[in-house]
Amino acid sequence: MNNLFANRMANAHKSFIREILKVTADPEVISFAGGLPNPQYFPVKDLAEAAARVLAEDGENALQYSTTEGYLPLRQYIAEWYSTKKGLEVTPDEILITNGSQQGLDLIGKVFLNAGDRVIIERPGYLGAIQAFSIFEPMFIPVPLQEDGIDTDLLERALDINEVKLFHTVVNFQNPSGITYSKQKRLELADIFKDRDTILIEDDPYGELRFAGEEVPPISSYLQGNVVLLGSFSKIVAPGLRLGWICAPEDVMESIVVAKQASDLHSNYFSQRIVYKYLCDHDIDEHIAGIREAYKSQRDRMVSSIEKHFPEEVKFTRPEGGMFIWVTLPERVSALRLFDLAGGENVAFVPGSAFYVDEGGKNTLRLNFSNSNEDEIEEGIKRLAKVMKKLLAADK
Amino acid sequence: MNNLFANRMANAHKSFIREILKVTADPEVISFAGGLPNPQYFPVKDLAEAAARVLAEDGENALQYSTTEGYLPLRQYIAEWYSTKKGLEVTPDEILITNGSQQGLDLIGKVFLNAGDRVIIERPGYLGAIQAFSIFEPMFIPVPLQEDGIDTDLLERALDINEVKLFHTVVNFQNPSGITYSKQKRLELADIFKDRDTILIEDDPYGELRFAGEEVPPISSYLQGNVVLLGSFSKIVAPGLRLGWICAPEDVMESIVVAKQASDLHSNYFSQRIVYKYLCDHDIDEHIAGIREAYKSQRDRMVSSIEKHFPEEVKFTRPEGGMFIWVTLPERVSALRLFDLAGGENVAFVPGSAFYVDEGGKNTLRLNFSNSNEDEIEEGIKRLAKVMKKLLAADK
Repeated sequence: MNNLFANRMANAHKSFIREILKVTADPEVISFAGGLPNPQYFPVKDLAEAAARVLAEDGENALQYSTTEGYLPLRQYIAEWYSTKKGLEVTPDEILITNGSQQGLDLIGKVFLNAGDRVIIERPGYLGAIQAFSIFEPMFIPVPLQEDGIDTDLLERALDINEVKLFHTVVNFQNPSGITYSKQKRLELADIFKDRDTILIEDDPYGELRFAGEEVPPISSYLQGNVVLLGSFSKIVAPGLRLGWICAPEDVMESIVVAKQASDLHSNYFSQRIVYKYLCDHDIDEHIAGIREAYKSQRDRMVSSIEKHFPEEVKFTRPEGGMFIWVTLPERVSALRLFDLAGGENVAFVPGSAFYVDEGGKNTLRLNFSNSNEDEIEEGIKRLAKVMKKLLAADK
Repeated sequence: MNNLFANRMANAHKSFIREILKVTADPEVISFAGGLPNPQYFPVKDLAEAAARVLAEDGENALQYSTTEGYLPLRQYIAEWYSTKKGLEVTPDEILITNGSQQGLDLIGKVFLNAGDRVIIERPGYLGAIQAFSIFEPMFIPVPLQEDGIDTDLLERALDINEVKLFHTVVNFQNPSGITYSKQKRLELADIFKDRDTILIEDDPYGELRFAGEEVPPISSYLQGNVVLLGSFSKIVAPGLRLGWICAPEDVMESIVVAKQASDLHSNYFSQRIVYKYLCDHDIDEHIAGIREAYKSQRDRMVSSIEKHFPEEVKFTRPEGGMFIWVTLPERVSALRLFDLAGGENVAFVPGSAFYVDEGGKNTLRLNFSNSNEDEIEEGIKRLAKVMKKLLAADK
């Protein structure tokens, strides 16, 4: 039946990460491979209370079909939150509820991408975006990240010599690198994009997970018209509810609504009602403060373990938030070989090449610190250091 | 920004039905326009109990990220149900959980359709399928329905002279026409498709809502390899949970998993857990029997009201299940004009042309009977009859 598949499937593959996750289901394995938030900080009881109230008070409505755009009070809450916390003037009409921000990426691909269209992504880039866009057969142009955000010189050059549809960026605690865009970079980006016919996708699933440094305003606060923002409840409430949102100017939103309707009519309405009830009845800031504190300890433990155990030639990022640390081995050392050897020691991570659309990143890897406890982190880093040293010695 | 949109959006429009639904929010309006199940028969209390148990017993897992394919016990339940109730041998690996069957259609479009590919749809056809596939820019070939299913002579001719990728059919209580495929037609279809490189999409969201006549085996029980089945919990549990499924051969499923992952990682996991718990703890057959009984009364009331009030020249279907009756006015009479006049009498329906990809159906309309109580049905049909008579008299 192979000849029946659409051309777009030829370049679409299962996520290497999700394949790794299957292997790491073994409880003996300490896994730094996933991108899972720590379930200890899911507000299980409060969500149970919210679910019970929604069903008791308005069950028939909460279980019925609903509007494509999403539950209006939830959209109003998000618009209000943008205004109060981020200094963004947004109306509820500019918000649509999605199945996590992954669906936001899919809808953007649907609405904007013809086969062959240019899309600039960060190098290394967010795998979920690469996967979502790949379905629409774009030409990716990877532009390298620096410590404080994308290399704006190379970005401008790429924009000057190509007709570019989209630029995708994860501005806070980027996945996979852990880096955060400086205010200076954000201002530069706003300046670069303000007169261009390219859409900047400001993807911000981790923004609330800052545990060090100072908050920086979103690029969207400096740029209007050709920015689409993506947000998510996955990291601050719970990912199993699959709720995120797109924030887009009304002319873009009109097409996004059409695409969403065709895709699945609307997102799970019961869960929208639960999350809204939860947000109304509880102090989400306090809840987030708890997550931040926990993730800070976990990052601190991973950083101190790395400092203690990894060979000095190995470099790594010290993220101010989020869930990931990025490790760079000496150029000659293959992270894929490290991955294979680490399997023997029951420790897992994601080889960095998964985040490159070109052949780069072979000596890099991503470590997740949010989903292991501190003792596991120390032990896992020790095991990893052991095979790293072996490999470095062998490759000398 | 219009020049930035993808070509596929040029032919994608908001559903006329969803636009009508906004108008009919007025409580004065008796609406036969929607396709909503009757919320009185949502198992609100039982779902509340299931939600509480899932969160109490396994909350952290039920709120975490999960597998793309969906919750394995739920997929096992569905496979078992196909085997017990439908005589289909299906493995859980051939089942993937979707956001309602609408997402099933989107994933099929993604996986199979290149721009310009031929898709045969029923005439009149299911609007959700037309919308989902339209995004992938196919060429639709509408083939007329008869009282017992599609016109197989015309279908074969269409298959002979075209290279056709997909054939979409709603075999039970079709939306919009209300007709059901006879066993004879199903056997003929199996025979027509068995040696062809065309995928038959057997879309069956209403199959469990049979309240008259005898159950007929699915086409999938006569045909293997190039059939994809779509099912849904929307009509038997609740649509706000957005849970349906695709049942496809493993080689097709492999691509569907890739497309699902790129689209939204996985469907709402908490709701999958709730529905599974609900199915385990309650007698779903008894629950469905209650829905059938209610819908039968509602259909009976609509049929008897139509017989009493509509002019004799107006024809209509008598469905053996589902939620819709299809009405055919004399050829000279426009259902769109009727719709406008009916608005003045506070009664609404969907003009049939919405279900045609060509210019047909101008004298047809779809009436929903599942979401109005019996007194409303009688009163609404009376109002509709009144404007119908006026229009028929004027157009003589």
